Amino acid sequence: MSSEPSTPPVCVLGLGLIGGSLLRAAVATGRQAFGWNRSSQAVEGAVADGFDASTDLTATLRRAAENDALVVIAVPMPAVDGILAAIAEHAPDVTLTDVVSVKAQVAAAVAAHGLSRRFVGGHPMAGTAESGWTAGDADLFRDAVWVVTVDDGTDPEAWRQVAELALDCGSVVVPAESREHDAAVARISHLPHVLAEALALSGAEGGDLALGLAAGSFRDGTRVAATAPALVDAMCEGNAVALLDVLDETLRVLSAAREQLAAGSTSELTRAGHAARQRYEQRRRDPITGTQPGDEGWIETFREAGRKGRVWAR
Amino acid sequence: MSSEPSTPPVCVLGLGLIGGSLLRAAVATGRQAFGWNRSSQAVEGAVADGFDASTDLTATLRRAAENDALVVIAVPMPAVDGILAAIAEHAPDVTLTDVVSVKAQVAAAVAAHGLSRRFVGGHPMAGTAESGWTAGDADLFRDAVWVVTVDDGTDPEAWRQVAELALDCGSVVVPAESREHDAAVARISHLPHVLAEALALSGAEGGDLALGLAAGSFRDGTRVAATAPALVDAMCEGNAVALLDVLDETLRVLSAAREQLAAGSTSELTRAGHAARQRYEQRRRDPITGTQPGDEGWIETFREAGRKGRVWAR
Repeated sequence: MSSEPSTPPVCVLGLGLIGGSLLRAAVATGRQAFGWNRSSQAVEGAVADGFDASTDLTATLRRAAENDALVVIAVPMPAVDGILAAIAEHAPDVTLTDVVSVKAQVAAAVAAHGLSRRFVGGHPMAGTAESGWTAGDADLFRDAVWVVTVDDGTDPEAWRQVAELALDCGSVVVPAESREHDAAVARISHLPHVLAEALALSGAEGGDLALGLAAGSFRDGTRVAATAPALVDAMCEGNAVALLDVLDETLRVLSAAREQLAAGSTSELTRAGHAARQRYEQRRRDPITGTQPGDEGWIETFREAGRKGRVWAR
Repeated sequence: MSSEPSTPPVCVLGLGLIGGSLLRAAVATGRQAFGWNRSSQAVEGAVADGFDASTDLTATLRRAAENDALVVIAVPMPAVDGILAAIAEHAPDVTLTDVVSVKAQVAAAVAAHGLSRRFVGGHPMAGTAESGWTAGDADLFRDAVWVVTVDDGTDPEAWRQVAELALDCGSVVVPAESREHDAAVARISHLPHVLAEALALSGAEGGDLALGLAAGSFRDGTRVAATAPALVDAMCEGNAVALLDVLDETLRVLSAAREQLAAGSTSELTRAGHAARQRYEQRRRDPITGTQPGDEGWIETFREAGRKGRVWAR
């Protein structure tokens, strides 16, 4: 254990948009940081930009173990299992987090490899439509929300290390249980994409007349339909269980609104929707006070704070 | 008939946001223009701002008849029938248009009062969340799309007068049959509001955790849910028949996407939605050429041009 456990070196596995941005952001805060990527192209780009990066996973993980580094898994979900196998072999005792957009599936894979003891899940709610090392930006996480998971058995010291990294990157830290995180992002990130695709389809079904009349409400409502389909598929399919529940709920809401419109009124939908948007506009980010990671009952306290929209600050 | 039939005086009935903006815009283009409003508050505001306005409907309509004015109905749908009765009594031969957001219902009311001969429907796709005379703006219609209807029997000279007014106000003129207009705006104006309300509800149903994690996709997808519920109700309920068709179609699209997600993939939806959004982004406004209002077959030619997103220019 280092004598400064909250600022360990950072080892980033995967140097795409998120991982590459994280390597840059960690270095920008003055931390020691090094990265690995499977393809040599990203590594060559990182080295050319003055960063410490390698295509040798074994050597990178051994270095992480020797230096008590905080290891960040920043590869796409399909590659997570292979990375975990390598970690279990070469660096089984490191503090471990990830930046994948679903959390329960990652936590289950971590458990399957016997790595749960020092693992804390993470999800920075940041991104662009671009990808790869060259798309990275040290400021990508500034003012973003970064979820840090509080599951049963979460190690408080590991939690604090992950949260400190998020804060160092300029993010706001919201604690959440993995499954609750997945349900929440199905509502506010994956459903918006599904509805945007459906709205775009409806407009195009109306032909060039409808598209020619489209103004602000259509433009804003379909904006994220411009995202590359493969990215949207990866998000939605990776969180299918939670998204199916939310889609079923939305189908019920829209079917009820359809029946009410057929009976002459949309006011039940519009009043409730307006109140919901007002609640969103008026949301606050009060700090969590009075409880520190590791305090008696901190896991349930932090989960409940996250449910109230509270954030963890130093 | 005036010797300059395309620039007659303009008589605006109703001085709310749209009518008040139109009175200002008409005067700004150098036209003679005068208005009427039921409540004295708007009229006092208009007069104080230097405009020619009255609360006397009979006198206003007689003046319009004497001056061969283009009369613009700018009252909400529920008030249209009473206005048409007064026009039929005091100014049955004027050229007549409207700026109400649904077109088939207005055309039917006009026909019921025997006023179809010199009537051409209009819909400037412009507005703000505000209302009343004080919210008006002479530039409200600048660069907006203004639909001018081409229904069976439309008088070409009346059509040209209405289109010229729209062009004078800085708008782009798209010809459309009334029912096709209503079907199109159900897709690109009313459905976006319904989906935004449903998305806002889904976010709020996830509580402060979900709202606290919400980022750009939720913010943009729910923006129009901030519109006053009564305004959304008026739009949706006034176009219920067309909106019900579009809602049913969207429920089918979302149900199919739900089944495909349950089977493991969203790619059919995301590819089609992305292509639809691309088509929207690449839409063009080519001018209608070769046919003038009144030419043989002009009505079907103009409808077909509008279906292709073409616009009428002088």
